[in-house]
Order: sequence, then structure tokens, then C-alpha cells
Amino acid sequence: MNGPRILEHLDVLSQFGKNPNGGVTRLAYSEADRQGRDYVLGLMRAAKLEVSIDAAGNLVGWLDGSNHVELLPLVIGSHIDSVPEGGNYDGDVGSISAIEIARFLTENRLLLRHPLQVIIFQNEEGGLIGSRALSGQLTEKELDLVSRSGKTIAEGIRFIGGDPSRLESVRRKRGDIAAYVELHIEQGGILDTEKINIGVVTGIVGINWWDVTIEGFANHAGTTPMDRRQDALLAAARFIDLVNRTVTSVPGRQVGTVGRIQALPGAPNVIPGRVTLSLELRDLDAAKIQMLYEKIRTGAEQIGAATGTKFTYKPINENVPALTSEVIRQKIGEAAKDLGLTTKLMPSGAGHDAQDMALLGPMGMIFVPSVGGISHSPQEFSRPADIVNGANVLLNTLLKLDWAATV
Amino acid sequence: MNGPRILEHLDVLSQFGKNPNGGVTRLAYSEADRQGRDYVLGLMRAAKLEVSIDAAGNLVGWLDGSNHVELLPLVIGSHIDSVPEGGNYDGDVGSISAIEIARFLTENRLLLRHPLQVIIFQNEEGGLIGSRALSGQLTEKELDLVSRSGKTIAEGIRFIGGDPSRLESVRRKRGDIAAYVELHIEQGGILDTEKINIGVVTGIVGINWWDVTIEGFANHAGTTPMDRRQDALLAAARFIDLVNRTVTSVPGRQVGTVGRIQALPGAPNVIPGRVTLSLELRDLDAAKIQMLYEKIRTGAEQIGAATGTKFTYKPINENVPALTSEVIRQKIGEAAKDLGLTTKLMPSGAGHDAQDMALLGPMGMIFVPSVGGISHSPQEFSRPADIVNGANVLLNTLLKLDWAATV
Repeated sequence: MNGPRILEHLDVLSQFGKNPNGGVTRLAYSEADRQGRDYVLGLMRAAKLEVSIDAAGNLVGWLDGSNHVELLPLVIGSHIDSVPEGGNYDGDVGSISAIEIARFLTENRLLLRHPLQVIIFQNEEGGLIGSRALSGQLTEKELDLVSRSGKTIAEGIRFIGGDPSRLESVRRKRGDIAAYVELHIEQGGILDTEKINIGVVTGIVGINWWDVTIEGFANHAGTTPMDRRQDALLAAARFIDLVNRTVTSVPGRQVGTVGRIQALPGAPNVIPGRVTLSLELRDLDAAKIQMLYEKIRTGAEQIGAATGTKFTYKPINENVPALTSEVIRQKIGEAAKDLGLTTKLMPSGAGHDAQDMALLGPMGMIFVPSVGGISHSPQEFSRPADIVNGANVLLNTLLKLDWAATV
Repeated sequence: MNGPRILEHLDVLSQFGKNPNGGVTRLAYSEADRQGRDYVLGLMRAAKLEVSIDAAGNLVGWLDGSNHVELLPLVIGSHIDSVPEGGNYDGDVGSISAIEIARFLTENRLLLRHPLQVIIFQNEEGGLIGSRALSGQLTEKELDLVSRSGKTIAEGIRFIGGDPSRLESVRRKRGDIAAYVELHIEQGGILDTEKINIGVVTGIVGINWWDVTIEGFANHAGTTPMDRRQDALLAAARFIDLVNRTVTSVPGRQVGTVGRIQALPGAPNVIPGRVTLSLELRDLDAAKIQMLYEKIRTGAEQIGAATGTKFTYKPINENVPALTSEVIRQKIGEAAKDLGLTTKLMPSGAGHDAQDMALLGPMGMIFVPSVGGISHSPQEFSRPADIVNGANVLLNTLLKLDWAATV
């Protein structure tokens, strides 16, 4: 494979939505997103993929196989949208590598038995919107939600060339694909710390996200004695600490995060009367998430009683855990071994489009190291050699899957 | 005094910046503020005050006295700007009552010995800007600060008809006024709870406001194990609880508040890397504020060490405590007694323009009850009878001060 070209394409892509302090802010449905997609569309055409924008706004490339009448497509891909102040590797590495694999095949006149599909999913960071449309999970109601770009999901889909009124046309069913394999950066520090080349993903954790509203009473910060306050931000503070204590109170890899908070009215001389914050819990075991959530709610009731505030919870998003295919895990392991690379089995703490594709057929994921485990940050970095290793493992896995009796 | 007219004028004033859910948002330098000021200017003219807008943007009304060549002016007034989602009484009661007193005097052809000045100070809620200009405390640097209206202080002053380049012209010195007396709602619940008519203010608490920045490290919420996080919002949460525990750990009336918070980047799936929040401490004793602040900083160092975060503090504003004049306290007490009203000596937990006027001459304040102690909120309410009582006490205090040998 042409490693230098992968790195060059990653470098060009990093210009769209570039931050002054490094990294990118390429929010789905933003102008930077649209420009990045235009660039990637050009790369897909240069790879001789037959390209279209589906009704959900995903970029879909097709390459015929020698037996594409009888065989289902092998699918590879990732996403190119980012979180606010994100990095240059999350999604981009898998997207550029998948396109380069198609280009490698066409440039070398190599014909797979299966047709190959390369999909660049839209709005992964805002809730796996593109892949959830494909797997039929995206609801009508969600189309009206406002994304970080300021546009609703429906407006965003139109903005990037899709048609939200025709979402049914993109929907696929279980058994529609031969396999889906995604290359991605680990986003954690395990491979980097243990100096391992390739992570073979065992499954993708479930993610539950709630918006929590805390109602207290806004009042004057100078004239309201400490013992007569109903301070929603004090209650929120104790809640955030409670989340941390609850999640770390039991053994395991589960994580819990409060990443967003707003306190109203938001003046230094007014006791906050209302706080909204996000609560996110992740684990490979959905029952454990539920158990932690219930413990947190019980603890929050005590905080509410002590501070004169009231907590309400609104489920915003739920991704159930998704396990990878045993056969694909084996092929990834063999592909890495052929290339002389070390591997480690590991769960993915991050959500990925792959978890939705797992509903359509066998799914696998390949991780490459993230230096320092840093992700969703301008300091996100994966070494060039690791990226090219990952792309080669993805290609070799694909070749093995193409000849596998069953996936 | 014409009580019904005071209440009617308050009612009309409440229309400028009216919120859908009650109360007003009449931020200084907003269009609502300008309209409210125009209305008040009309009332001042109707009271036969000689009115001007000074270079700082304060509305200043003048009424000659019988001996205004030898005697210094007696000054009364308040403000009409509000906090975001504020109420209809904070500032407005004192402003409308002061103007009505001038109207009472002119309508009844009553001549005071001293000249009378009625001042409606601009931007009280954003840091006592108008009265700090008068007392020479407003700095050049502050003129460039952005107020809640979105305008800088300098832009705001121009917007309301002042001239920030001529601030020196409004500056007064100690000994320039005979006395300043301000009527205001208590904004706390003491008078209401104890069913007392009039609060005689002993002093105005000092207020220190810092902006606190907490630097952690933004990272992926799914792939960063709990024990490897540098979560700035978790540190902020523990800080907010620390402020509460520290302030309530010693006896007294001191208060401490975190009213504003921002966590960046602010996505549910990203560990916050940076939080900024406001810290405000108030007490009648400046040394106690300093002691609490130091205790908080010491506690925060431990939080920083435990969470891998760093705290920095930026002093934004400091109002030193201001004591009221013994003579004025006596006159207020006598005036209330003459009207058959009960009184209580009490500090003001809120800052007021009166604290700046105390730098120019003897200062006093009259409080009327706030129902439920609610203020800086749409639910802020003072009973009509209490408001009219307050206006009558202010008038009678003024008449007594006019004939006092020394104030």
C-alpha cells in the first residue's frame, strides 16, 4: 500500500476546520464538514469508486467484485466529522485508509470476489446518525433535534446533499452485507503504554446519555443566608462528585462523565436556580450501566433533599453494546501476524458506526495506538508508521475475508 | 405623599424589558434600559427637577433649596437597571420614590433649605458603574470591559447619552454632599419573617469577586479510564462544594456563591479540560472575606492535586464594606417612629450605589420588606403598603436632615 499517500491525504483533510491551536473543529453539517466531504468525495472518485451521496447524507463508494451477483458486499469505512476542538485522527484514519484500499485495488487491477463498499458515515460524533439511518434506527423525531452545528439533523442532512424525506431508501437489513470492518485509532492509552501495534476489538461498549435538570431557586447572592438557599449549582456540584464516586466504587472498566453543564441565570451575584448537565455512562455490559444509573439516582435524591432542589432525567441517547465477529477477530489476528505486528484483544470504550453495522452482519474493528491515549483533543496523535500498519492490516483482513467460507 | 402614583409609576416602569414569565430583563445599556430611562427622565421633568445626563450616563435632577448657596445638596436616588431575569422592585422602588419626593415638594411648593439632588445611577447591577464614576473609582481599563448587554462599558455609556471621554467632569470629592439616603427593598427575608416595617441599615457588606480557572485535560469520555482523567469539571464540582463548606464552617452572616460556570469543550462525550467559574464572597468585615478566601485556596490546592488540575484566580471586582452614618440612622429611626412604623438595625448583604456615595459624605439606607426574601428573580415582590411606607420614611428623614445641625 502507498503509505505516504495515506499520510498526505490525512494532512490535506486536516486543513478543513483547522483550529488556531491545532486539531480541527469539523462539526457535522458545518461548512468545514462540507468542504472536507468534497475533498474526500474527490479521493473516492480518484480511487475509481462509483460514488453517490445516499439519502442520509453518507458518502457511499462501490467497486464491483468478480462475483458480485452472488456475493454480498464487504464494507469498510469510517467518518470525518469531529467533536468541537477535536483531533486529526479520530475517524479520518479509517476513512482515508478505506479509500486508499479501494485505490490500491483499482490501481493494481486486483479484483475481489465480493463487491467492496466504502462508506464515509455522516455525523458520527453527534450520535452515529449516518450509520443509524443505514441500520434503520434513526427516528423521525430525531430529525428535529438541533445538532452542534446549529442546524437540525434534517437541515444538516439536506445541507450535505441528502434527503431526509427518503431515509427509508437507505435502510438495510440483517444479512445485507458480508462483513463490516473499520480501522480506527484506539483513543485510549493501552496500546501505546504496552507498546502493541494492533488492537483487535472484542466489542463496543454501550453508551447511555441523559440530560439531567436540577431545579432550585434563583435568588440574590448577597441577601440570601447560606441556610436558606436552594442552590441548583451546589446540588449539581455534589451530583458530579457522586457520579465519579459511584462509577469508581465497583471494579471494572466502566466510565461515567459529566461533560456539559449550564447554570442559569449565570450571573456571579445570583444563586443559580436551574442547572442542566449531561450524564454519560459506558460499559460492555448494559446491566451494569443500569445498576450504576440507579445508584446515582438514589444518591441524587439525597442531594436534592439536602439542598432543596429537584432532579429530573431525560434519556437522550442509548447505544447498546455490540460484540465483534469471532471470525473477523481471527482474520485480523492472522493479518497482523503475517505483517509481523503484535496484537491485543480489547474492548472499545468509544462508540463507533461499526456498532450499528453489527446489526446488518458480522463486524470487526482494528485499533492503532493513540500516543498518550489522548483523543477528542487537538493533541490527539497517532504515529505515521502505526497508521500505515493499520491500513495494511485492514487490507489483508479484507483479502482473507474475501476468500473465507463464512464470515 | 401620593402613594397610588408611586405604585402606578412602578407599574409602567415594569413594562420596559418585561419577561414572558414575569419580572424584567433590563440589562444596563440594553434597548429596554434606554426606554426605561426615557420614561424616568419624563417623570423627573414632571417633578420639576432640572434634569441632565451626566458624562457617566447617570440621570441627575436638581431642585434649588432656600439656602443653596451655602448648603451642600442632600442626595437621594437609586437605579433602574436589572440583572438577567430580575424583578420589578430592586432599584425601581428607590428610584420612583425619590422622584416622587421631588414632585411632592414642588407640587406642595415646599422649599428645603438644602438643594436636593435625585440621581438615577446607571448600571448598578454590572458593578455600580455610575456611582463609581461619581466617586472617582471607575478606571479607564474598566471602560473596555464587556457588560452583559454585549457592549463595553464605554460603548454603553455613549449608548445612554454619556461621554466616557469626559468622566473626570462628574467626579465628586469627599465633602461635596450633605448626605446621601437611599430607599431600597431588603432583598433578604428578615423584615418579612419578623414582620418589621423598616430596616435601618448599619452598613453595606464588602464584596469580592474572582474568576477562577481550572485547567485539566480534555480527553475522550469513553476511552480514558477513570483513574487517568484530569477532569476540570470534577475539580470544579469539588471546589463549589468546598466554597459552601468553608463559608458555613464559621459563625456569622458571611455568604459565598458560585453563580457562573462554563465547562469546555462542553460535549457530553468529552472530559472537560477547562472550567471557568465565578467566586463571590461577602461580609461586613473585609478581614473575614480574606480569611475565607485563603481557606478556600488552600482547600482547592488539595483538589487540584487529587484531580490533576490547576486552579488560577483573577480578582475581578472588590467593593470594600461601607458603614452608614450614625446621625442618619437616628433620623431614619425617628422618621419611622413618627409614622408608627417598627424598625430593625441590619446590614445590607447586597451592594448598593450608596456604598460609593459613602465616600463623598454621610450615607444612610432604608429597607422595606421583600416577601419571602426573594430578589434577583421574577418572583421578587414588595407589598404596596410597605413601598409607600418606605417612601414616607425617606421623605421624613430628608426633612429631618434638612434641619439637622450636622449630618
